[in-house]
Amino acid sequence: MTKKTLSEQLNWRYATKKMDPAKSVPQEKVDAIIEAVRMAPTSSGTQPFELIVVTNEKVRAEICKAASDQTPITDGSHLLVFAAWDNYTEARIDAVTEANVKARGDIPLIHQYYGNLKANYIPREAEVNYAHAARQAYIALGFAMIAAADQEVDCTPMEGFDPAAVDKILGLNERGLRSVVLLPLGYRDEAGDWLLPMPKVRKSRETLVTFVD
Amino acid sequence: MTKKTLSEQLNWRYATKKMDPAKSVPQEKVDAIIEAVRMAPTSSGTQPFELIVVTNEKVRAEICKAASDQTPITDGSHLLVFAAWDNYTEARIDAVTEANVKARGDIPLIHQYYGNLKANYIPREAEVNYAHAARQAYIALGFAMIAAADQEVDCTPMEGFDPAAVDKILGLNERGLRSVVLLPLGYRDEAGDWLLPMPKVRKSRETLVTFVD
Repeated sequence: MTKKTLSEQLNWRYATKKMDPAKSVPQEKVDAIIEAVRMAPTSSGTQPFELIVVTNEKVRAEICKAASDQTPITDGSHLLVFAAWDNYTEARIDAVTEANVKARGDIPLIHQYYGNLKANYIPREAEVNYAHAARQAYIALGFAMIAAADQEVDCTPMEGFDPAAVDKILGLNERGLRSVVLLPLGYRDEAGDWLLPMPKVRKSRETLVTFVD
Repeated sequence: MTKKTLSEQLNWRYATKKMDPAKSVPQEKVDAIIEAVRMAPTSSGTQPFELIVVTNEKVRAEICKAASDQTPITDGSHLLVFAAWDNYTEARIDAVTEANVKARGDIPLIHQYYGNLKANYIPREAEVNYAHAARQAYIALGFAMIAAADQEVDCTPMEGFDPAAVDKILGLNERGLRSVVLLPLGYRDEAGDWLLPMPKVRKSRETLVTFVD
């Protein structure tokens, strides 16, 4: 079997509504998806989010209740929770600076760059900084969905949940995090998923794209 | 030459700081990147953004000035501007409903679903709706960056620009759009890019990921 092209992968994937509870995603495939999240680029390289990978059935059942009982959370084998920083802080940006210095050397430019970043970010409202961090998590969400398709693993991006409830279940607030988006991983139940036979709906290129030549 | 794996692509790509102005990205590669943007999943399938593809040199020079003179904008051959809806409106959601009905049939569930969406979204502040739309554009940004790497095309995600100025240059406000993020496409200037030889900086898996088993 030849490997799908990216275009074929993007057509193959869909927001799986019914997953097969009998199938579990092998660890090496989960690892490849996690690695794509880790490699996702973010604004100024801050990676201002964490990834919580939930396999625990009881915890997934609780999260499922906080997400209008969307069954991929419990029928899949792994639940990815993207949790963004609730704010940019001096300590968090200093840790990014240190990681840069460690990898690239003690270059004055690095200190200057992240010094400016602190001067810009830290005085801002926590909500503004959280919103900025959450956007970066969406880049990683995109990377995770393509990595899943690349591994022929199904997934279901979900915004429809009670973030405060999920934060509480996972103890995120104590860690300075807020849940942004969920991504259950698993395998489609081909017979049971009403969405699978439906054609994909996307705007035409003409509707979506304008060229300024 | 064998095709790179996704993991190799994610290591190959980087936020290119110096592009070679003598090289232009072929149309079929630009098309593949646009197609990935078009296929990117979005909340409730609304695709609440448009993509502006700027090749015009004068327009790119103006945008470059509004983006602290970041040269990939003018040294690359194409500039992608992701522009999110400034608000969710009845007309916009009705158009999504119609597209769904056209593709999937006149199913009562579709009308009910998007009716609920309108009831939720339309009373909200425009700024809340814009923020939600902008997040969706970041999924497409992630898709575009992977599609570029898949095509061995370089790109440079950029938030550092004056959105009001770019909106004005492109006439976006009149179209109910606001610029969110820029992505110049081109080819790295291997000799001239200070960032290319630098090691990539990413958090360790242990720092980024927590497992709840």
